[in-house]
Amino acid sequence: MDITNVSSIEESLINDKLNRTEADFDQIDARVKEIINDVKNFGDEALKKFTEKFDGAQLTTLKVSQAEIDAAYESIDEEFINVLQEAKQNIIDFHQAQLEKSWLNYKNDGIILGQKVTPLDRIGVYVPGGKAAYPSTVLMTVLPAVVAGVNEIALVSPPDKDGNVHPYVLAAAKIAGVQEIYRVGGAQAIAALAYGTETIRPVDKIVGPGNIYVARAKKYVFGTVDIDMIAGPSEVCIIADEKQNPVFIAADLLSQAEHDEMAASILVTNSTELATAVQKEVENQLAKLERKDIARQSIDQYGQIFVVDTLDEAFNVANIIAPEHLELLVADPFANLSKVKHAGAIFLGPYAPEPLGDYFAGPNHTLPTSGTARFSSPLGTYDFLKRSSVIFYNQEELEKVKNQVVHFANEEGLGAHANSIQVRFNCEV
Amino acid sequence: MDITNVSSIEESLINDKLNRTEADFDQIDARVKEIINDVKNFGDEALKKFTEKFDGAQLTTLKVSQAEIDAAYESIDEEFINVLQEAKQNIIDFHQAQLEKSWLNYKNDGIILGQKVTPLDRIGVYVPGGKAAYPSTVLMTVLPAVVAGVNEIALVSPPDKDGNVHPYVLAAAKIAGVQEIYRVGGAQAIAALAYGTETIRPVDKIVGPGNIYVARAKKYVFGTVDIDMIAGPSEVCIIADEKQNPVFIAADLLSQAEHDEMAASILVTNSTELATAVQKEVENQLAKLERKDIARQSIDQYGQIFVVDTLDEAFNVANIIAPEHLELLVADPFANLSKVKHAGAIFLGPYAPEPLGDYFAGPNHTLPTSGTARFSSPLGTYDFLKRSSVIFYNQEELEKVKNQVVHFANEEGLGAHANSIQVRFNCEV
Repeated sequence: MDITNVSSIEESLINDKLNRTEADFDQIDARVKEIINDVKNFGDEALKKFTEKFDGAQLTTLKVSQAEIDAAYESIDEEFINVLQEAKQNIIDFHQAQLEKSWLNYKNDGIILGQKVTPLDRIGVYVPGGKAAYPSTVLMTVLPAVVAGVNEIALVSPPDKDGNVHPYVLAAAKIAGVQEIYRVGGAQAIAALAYGTETIRPVDKIVGPGNIYVARAKKYVFGTVDIDMIAGPSEVCIIADEKQNPVFIAADLLSQAEHDEMAASILVTNSTELATAVQKEVENQLAKLERKDIARQSIDQYGQIFVVDTLDEAFNVANIIAPEHLELLVADPFANLSKVKHAGAIFLGPYAPEPLGDYFAGPNHTLPTSGTARFSSPLGTYDFLKRSSVIFYNQEELEKVKNQVVHFANEEGLGAHANSIQVRFNCEV
Repeated sequence: MDITNVSSIEESLINDKLNRTEADFDQIDARVKEIINDVKNFGDEALKKFTEKFDGAQLTTLKVSQAEIDAAYESIDEEFINVLQEAKQNIIDFHQAQLEKSWLNYKNDGIILGQKVTPLDRIGVYVPGGKAAYPSTVLMTVLPAVVAGVNEIALVSPPDKDGNVHPYVLAAAKIAGVQEIYRVGGAQAIAALAYGTETIRPVDKIVGPGNIYVARAKKYVFGTVDIDMIAGPSEVCIIADEKQNPVFIAADLLSQAEHDEMAASILVTNSTELATAVQKEVENQLAKLERKDIARQSIDQYGQIFVVDTLDEAFNVANIIAPEHLELLVADPFANLSKVKHAGAIFLGPYAPEPLGDYFAGPNHTLPTSGTARFSSPLGTYDFLKRSSVIFYNQEELEKVKNQVVHFANEEGLGAHANSIQVRFNCEV
């Protein structure tokens, strides 16, 4: 893990170190478009064809039966069910605090302006399949929609060779309250959710993580439906002062690094001693990890320790990185919160490690990655709500401003707009 | 203008009537990608090349000087300046009501969860050029960002053949408080805002309407930066009972129709008499409009009158359409507001015609079009704010849940995640 002294805050230096460059997706996009068009044209038949091709499963039915869901749930040990239930309650509690109310402002008797907040009708959730199953993904993507009041939630997840969706995914879906589950993944699943097939009715928004085909398919269908975000490799940035425990820091960096080879683990500190201690401790802990091959590649390629002169500079560096996860291991982290401009989730103090947020505390673990925290937010209840403006004027109030509106319309050359005001006061058309 | 009786609510019938089909943008996308790559590779030089090619202007400077902005402002008659100032105040008032606060929930001494709300650093606003200039677009796109607290706002707008940005755009920009303006439009302007050039520093989000090249370029750069929405043709849907004035309704339908040939103007009513009267009145008024050629094409292609049995059915039809603008010309529109599920902006009663909202009332006129109100909101202050989750646990509280988090991490096969909890309680790595 490299240690770099950052004496002057150079945005380009930091971005170079993180290897943040935009890839070219032309070939993947061409393939994704073919898959999407096939699903548009051939519906279920195309879904089954691609599932055989990519997942090696010959499907008879796309929809997972309630009996299958129940059986999956029954197969899980009770202790883990309890953990999932506890996590569910924490996630619901946090996301309820994000609910928005409709409002009306009564300017006077004749002017009322407001905003009506309405949940989306129907959404789709993508849950990756493969060897590892992520029940946490199910809870984190489904529950905000449940809290928002979305009526219909369709979950898709690629099956194994026998056509089965992972029992952890099914069990978590049952716990979250999802009844509509389809055994299909990849770009084909995104196409089905966006355009519909005989079996799968189209949704209004698609959320959830996936591989690069899923991500590019989501970008392709964006506009026809809404999407949450286009997720890239994830990262953690830890700001630590000289008093922090290098063992904690190394463990937290490695918890990010084990995700995948592209994950970035970054420490920013004002202490050279801590930097050296963490560098050594990362090596110690890494050797003992089950997923050490992945973590090793991640640490070697994207692991970075930046040493700065002052903690204020550390915050500047973190704001340039705009990390998905930011840990503040400093004295009085609450007082320093105002220095954080860009981060997906902020973990305060030595006893709020990132995995606590990944699984359990309640805030969402679906976060803006790769610097997109500059402009995006965690997945939240607000993702499943939309707003409509509300405008009421009575005759008297419209009359007071009619000349202004007509003037404005005429300046823009839109005579019918002016006319719509004028006819209400008996002007000639 | 066709009258159709809709006795049973058939989503497919309504969508067929509105000709809502997805176009293929392959050729445009290929051209857009070339332009974007050219700007990425050659920066300002490419911007000047494309401006000469598409706008016929040979530019010496890209940035509009303060002297030009001031001169444009001075050239506007004082009465219109006053109208713009009044509109500005109304827009600011409404968008201030959309501001979101950061919050912290103190679950107990040891668990504090919250959400930090931060404005975006730097945004770009696209304002179309051409013969018609839309100062209303400037106010509606810039002011929500100003209210949100965005520090840097870069505005781009294509120049005329002499290299000048329309004086109305410059004057409105000055009124809205924008100082950074570039004379460049099209896909090349979007590329400059997303990736930066020698003169234009990249932004975090791009908002504002534009032609199909601008829209596709925005979709292309989405992910690198955020965008507001991909706008399609606009529409108005009017729900009216038998007591409403056909003159008002025809004028409002035509105010939408004059926008462009693709605009859709739709009346849904429970009265055959009103339907016939509006049909006739549209013809009367249309003949006298300045922009009658555009309005004629729009009405003939996309104008629709749906006659339903009951007003409740009218709301069902409107929810299927999910219109950009929805006028409720019914007795007691407030009591009926709960029936509206999908609409960009809702105009209540006979004295809140759509143009009042386009220019003056305060709510944004940048609205989700073509049915995307099913999942999107008007442009608002929230578009320029983002959220970060905040998580604090103390040692005691983490200890209480450590087994659950470790269990969850191990079930997902992520040992380093479990380790990050365990090292904090002196377990062996």
